[in-house]
Amino acid sequence: MHIAQLVPLQIAVPPCAYGGTERVVYNLVEALVRQGHDVTLYATGDSHTSARLVPMLDKALRFDPNVDATAHHIAMLNEIYADADQYDIIHSHMEYITLPFVDKTRRPTLLTLHGRLDVPAWNRVYRRYPAANYVSISDAQRQFLPQLRWVRTVHHGINVADFPFQPEHGDYLTFVGRMSPEKRPDIAIEVARRSGIPNKIAAKVDHKERPFFEREIVPLLDDPLVEWLGEVDETGKRELMANALALLLPINWPEPFGMVFIEALACGTPVLTCPLGSVPELLMDGITGYCGCTVEELVEGVKKVWRISREGCRSYAARRFDSSRMASEYVDVYRELQGHRRRYFVAPGPLIAHPAVPGILTRAPRKAGRVADSVHGAALP
Amino acid sequence: MHIAQLVPLQIAVPPCAYGGTERVVYNLVEALVRQGHDVTLYATGDSHTSARLVPMLDKALRFDPNVDATAHHIAMLNEIYADADQYDIIHSHMEYITLPFVDKTRRPTLLTLHGRLDVPAWNRVYRRYPAANYVSISDAQRQFLPQLRWVRTVHHGINVADFPFQPEHGDYLTFVGRMSPEKRPDIAIEVARRSGIPNKIAAKVDHKERPFFEREIVPLLDDPLVEWLGEVDETGKRELMANALALLLPINWPEPFGMVFIEALACGTPVLTCPLGSVPELLMDGITGYCGCTVEELVEGVKKVWRISREGCRSYAARRFDSSRMASEYVDVYRELQGHRRRYFVAPGPLIAHPAVPGILTRAPRKAGRVADSVHGAALP
Repeated sequence: MHIAQLVPLQIAVPPCAYGGTERVVYNLVEALVRQGHDVTLYATGDSHTSARLVPMLDKALRFDPNVDATAHHIAMLNEIYADADQYDIIHSHMEYITLPFVDKTRRPTLLTLHGRLDVPAWNRVYRRYPAANYVSISDAQRQFLPQLRWVRTVHHGINVADFPFQPEHGDYLTFVGRMSPEKRPDIAIEVARRSGIPNKIAAKVDHKERPFFEREIVPLLDDPLVEWLGEVDETGKRELMANALALLLPINWPEPFGMVFIEALACGTPVLTCPLGSVPELLMDGITGYCGCTVEELVEGVKKVWRISREGCRSYAARRFDSSRMASEYVDVYRELQGHRRRYFVAPGPLIAHPAVPGILTRAPRKAGRVADSVHGAALP
Repeated sequence: MHIAQLVPLQIAVPPCAYGGTERVVYNLVEALVRQGHDVTLYATGDSHTSARLVPMLDKALRFDPNVDATAHHIAMLNEIYADADQYDIIHSHMEYITLPFVDKTRRPTLLTLHGRLDVPAWNRVYRRYPAANYVSISDAQRQFLPQLRWVRTVHHGINVADFPFQPEHGDYLTFVGRMSPEKRPDIAIEVARRSGIPNKIAAKVDHKERPFFEREIVPLLDDPLVEWLGEVDETGKRELMANALALLLPINWPEPFGMVFIEALACGTPVLTCPLGSVPELLMDGITGYCGCTVEELVEGVKKVWRISREGCRSYAARRFDSSRMASEYVDVYRELQGHRRRYFVAPGPLIAHPAVPGILTRAPRKAGRVADSVHGAALP
């Protein structure tokens, strides 16, 4: 299949550091190429890929406040959609900015939504395009917008073989992620304290989250059981997780997909967290670790987590979250959309005689909400 | 005529304080309504207008970094263009974000570009849409993108009658504008010093420009000839300008349209500035004040500026920059676009038999660059 993959220009593929979406796209593209597909990646020129790379900008923009990324993205989409007919499928990871372009070609566009949908502005814009082809990254993600035309849920995938498997369990807990109130580092510290087991905390502190960190977390770090590591690189993160007793990440928001959970499992390390958002879909209580809603329940989890099979965690990750599985599921979706192309845009009305000016043709009013279907390329009106 | 006016959602119409585009749109809409047109304004609900207001959001977003204005704008444009057929013309002031929508209707869209075009990201996106219908706010604005389909230059307009006319010249110079290196407040101070005439400086200091202000300008303010007023409101600004000997604003960048110049003229106050960007189009050397490229030339200008006729400045502003003139020029453009609707987008190819699969219809490849014209609503292919 001829597949176009579209990513935003802020971060290269794969990302050097932070960049969840770009890492998933990297994994997907590599797996699609391995499966023999003809993949074109539209990304920044400093990206690395086995696919054909069409650079849309020399270098990743990062989040430079002096550069208008939206203008670059609209120019980029205009360029791509002018040539879209050469692809069987256009798969965009560029979120809502893709939507005004999807009817510029008859080739189907698939849009994977990577972000949260409870943000009012994002919720509003997706509600205006209910019939585009959406993929959710978990069933839980759909709860805020159940009315969209969700084609499928495709869970993210990683290259499980790239993660170091550690068959023996370690003697510390670890918290890995962004330093944000939604990840509840304070609870992670409290749980470690009450269970008497050390907690190694590796987290990126964003500019935006620094006040929270200084005010709420720094006072808690002065404890012999707590070790603050700051931001660690990808290799360091994997080592840290592999050698831990468990990943302890007591989220308190409906995270659409917890990437770090499946990375920990790939290392053989069980996960202790709260059953919110995608967690019940990704993890199995008692098999991949334990879920708890309170500090007490999580402390209970810590006490018995050594009993979880680390081989079981690893093979669970390999079976359910390898990137080859993700690629195969996407190819299924691509095939489905190729067969059944839905035109969701409102078709223009027919030409009729102008009601006021004799001899002049005009368009009848558009019939709002009209949807025409075609199967296998048959005629559209 | 049925006219839709589209403005961004960050600032209400008219703006409370800063908001050049929104003030121009306010003036335009009021003048169009006075001329008997049926105008619909798509803006925030806290706007005030004589036209029909369709609120796209309760309140102006300001520049809240926690709200994604682009998502709101795309949702807004999707909503408007779904009903666009009811208008004779859609006139957008929303810059490039409008472009992906202009081919969603056969009604013509006119896009007034209010900003500078030498910013790489903006330049890139407009180059991708060379054949949309653009209005420049000065001929000078076009220099960075001469290849666009510029339909007309329409200079901004103000309600000259709302400005206090002062027939006697004052005894101080004034600098009114943003505190930015591009407006050269340092030169304005130097000129006042050398000519021995007081300079009253009224300027907004943005967060971004505070370092420049602290470092470069604050040390210069400690001078008996310099009076620092900080940010003043609209009424204060008009009083300040009306009672001045001259407005002294030695810009050093190609400003696409200097609104404050024509506001000063409306008060009868001549202007001293540098002949860059739109200045030679807006001002007449020796009639509305003097232009100079160096401190010496500007000091020369100060010496003779009392000779400029203040009545002449006022009537020049009334003749050339009243909002009724702006509205009439836009109506001319609207009429022209109504008669001659250019479809600039690439039309889809005709249905043909599929070259490989018998019995199946497919689309012939699109003929890139094809442009179809129609005159007075006659059939389009």
